[in-house]
Amino acid sequence: MRPVSVIGVGQTPVGEHWAKSLRDLGVEATRAALADAGIDRVDALFAGSMLSGLLCQQENLATLIAAFAGFPGIEALKIEAACASGGAVVRVAQLAVASGAHEVVVAVGIEKMTDLAIDGVTAALATAADADYEAAHGVTFSALNALLMRLYMERYGCQRADFAPFVITAHENARANPYAMFRESVTTQDFLDSPMVADPISILDSSPVCDGAAAVVLCSTERAREFSDRPVRILASATATDTLGLAPRKDPLWFQAVYESTHRAYRQAGLRPADIDFFELHDAFTIVSALSLEAACFAERGQGVRFAQEGHIQREGKLPICTRGGLKARGHPVGASGTYQIVEAVQQLRGEAGENQLADCRIGIAQSVGGMASVAVTHILGV
Amino acid sequence: MRPVSVIGVGQTPVGEHWAKSLRDLGVEATRAALADAGIDRVDALFAGSMLSGLLCQQENLATLIAAFAGFPGIEALKIEAACASGGAVVRVAQLAVASGAHEVVVAVGIEKMTDLAIDGVTAALATAADADYEAAHGVTFSALNALLMRLYMERYGCQRADFAPFVITAHENARANPYAMFRESVTTQDFLDSPMVADPISILDSSPVCDGAAAVVLCSTERAREFSDRPVRILASATATDTLGLAPRKDPLWFQAVYESTHRAYRQAGLRPADIDFFELHDAFTIVSALSLEAACFAERGQGVRFAQEGHIQREGKLPICTRGGLKARGHPVGASGTYQIVEAVQQLRGEAGENQLADCRIGIAQSVGGMASVAVTHILGV
Repeated sequence: MRPVSVIGVGQTPVGEHWAKSLRDLGVEATRAALADAGIDRVDALFAGSMLSGLLCQQENLATLIAAFAGFPGIEALKIEAACASGGAVVRVAQLAVASGAHEVVVAVGIEKMTDLAIDGVTAALATAADADYEAAHGVTFSALNALLMRLYMERYGCQRADFAPFVITAHENARANPYAMFRESVTTQDFLDSPMVADPISILDSSPVCDGAAAVVLCSTERAREFSDRPVRILASATATDTLGLAPRKDPLWFQAVYESTHRAYRQAGLRPADIDFFELHDAFTIVSALSLEAACFAERGQGVRFAQEGHIQREGKLPICTRGGLKARGHPVGASGTYQIVEAVQQLRGEAGENQLADCRIGIAQSVGGMASVAVTHILGV
Repeated sequence: MRPVSVIGVGQTPVGEHWAKSLRDLGVEATRAALADAGIDRVDALFAGSMLSGLLCQQENLATLIAAFAGFPGIEALKIEAACASGGAVVRVAQLAVASGAHEVVVAVGIEKMTDLAIDGVTAALATAADADYEAAHGVTFSALNALLMRLYMERYGCQRADFAPFVITAHENARANPYAMFRESVTTQDFLDSPMVADPISILDSSPVCDGAAAVVLCSTERAREFSDRPVRILASATATDTLGLAPRKDPLWFQAVYESTHRAYRQAGLRPADIDFFELHDAFTIVSALSLEAACFAERGQGVRFAQEGHIQREGKLPICTRGGLKARGHPVGASGTYQIVEAVQQLRGEAGENQLADCRIGIAQSVGGMASVAVTHILGV
């Protein structure tokens, strides 16, 4: 496989974009990424989205964005992997360049979720679960994650308050991110006072329903410096899957797809957890953050929450996470979140993260997770 | 790019599968393709589907099929390109092998459309059109194609009856295909008597709403003979796009995406139209067949219908099309149809098409088209 690099990134602010359509968001992020790369044309466009059909009545999305972004005729395909769609689309774009089929491609993650009442959005999100054996019974992702969080608390003997550091850190990191949805700090007391969604999951354990799009431009590493004096290398790109339902799993508190995807990526890059400078993880709920830290082998089993409590996840800690606010505070437009993570990792590696800039940062992981961690897409990026 | 070959194919019968779920169909086709290849494991699975979310409330489809087909942990992603999804999924699978990321992968196209009332299906199919500028006005694909067919008849001076050969040939070719939905002959009189859907498009101009799944197993050409003594080479794989809407096009009777996709494929393969032995084209409506023959440069502009009338599209003609019944008579489970085309082309090239076997057949095209020909995916296959 020929090596692939990122030569441009772009994003829209995350929020409730009632005045912008799905296509507006996708085109805006795509054009921003091309402008960043200093180009006005690509050979192919891949669009990641989970819910464009269900929430916006728009399939054929990649073709639409290609035409409206100004690239008539190019190859364009949509990629879906539930809430991991934003990572998956970069995976396919990477394959397109690595194969030699294309020289310069753009991957754009797009989601518009706020044009519908919340119960409709909740039902649409439940299509990431097993339709016949889980979703048909009315289960929601808040409920499923609440089961995991309660089990975690009981098995490992911790309290709701112990999860607060994930939320506090995410909001702290979002403060200086102009693209983030929630740019205000929260305290442990705010967290404890926040209303329950599905006990023990509260509003502040959860990432928001929102709109947004993010894009990355890829080309072969060999040619990357023709376009950018700060290219970022994709050192690894790996997807792994697990059962959709929790029931068949040996241990619901073990994210096998996250483990497998991360370890495939470590092997591809020839790296170990100790080599990683930061981790853009999929903090859709606080419990997902804890279990992701464990499955990616940054914390022992049952120690993910303690890892956060000990301050390791903060910008000065040994493994900063969600450095621009994460899904929790930057926001979680589901099929776009994985692409936002890669945009943010590239900004860190280029030294363009402003007040959030990490010191000595050379290698980072961006990891996008779908369903109940039934699919995970991991990218390791480096300079 | 390293060359890629097909080493196994599988399919379910096309029809109204009320007793089988989306997953049953996908797993059945996948397992059949693996059995054909003589293997029981793949490195990755790509699923093509347009409507699994809208009609079956199931996204995260590739992960689901991977788990239920018995491949826990592997990479799995869903690909969507409207009614071209079944071709697009093979395109992405080809990139995965060509890049060297995987050795053996399966691409499966899956659609289940008959669990819903027809107006719901019509609305879901309309998500392939521009949601804001076309579908919002209530337009359907039958109506859009009726506009084209009427314009064609007026501009080129032909009658409804002139389109009959497309239908007669498709039904004739489906008779000996055990996987086809409609295995009975039709006559010109049947065609003329068939009830109108959107004048001048009748029931018999149209492909049916139905269920089905088809799968192909790919590996590098270098290793193909380890698995199969009859591998079929993918000589070209090319996607092209156009505007979603008809309004911005210079000439609505010219399928630019079909032209561009076919010509990219010709260039990749180093072939010309005269080298092609048969053409599995996207006969969703008779007018689409005529315009596809023209855009792929087998017939002059305005001569696609005459090309059919002159008998060239029959099994003994100079360019047989839809050799196992096409979308019209084998059936059109939308996100699976493009994969069925490739399965059928492989059967022809292996000499396994039974009563439908073409003589001296070495190179064939399978072409999957989405929306109003807003996206086209072309594969050239050869032995």
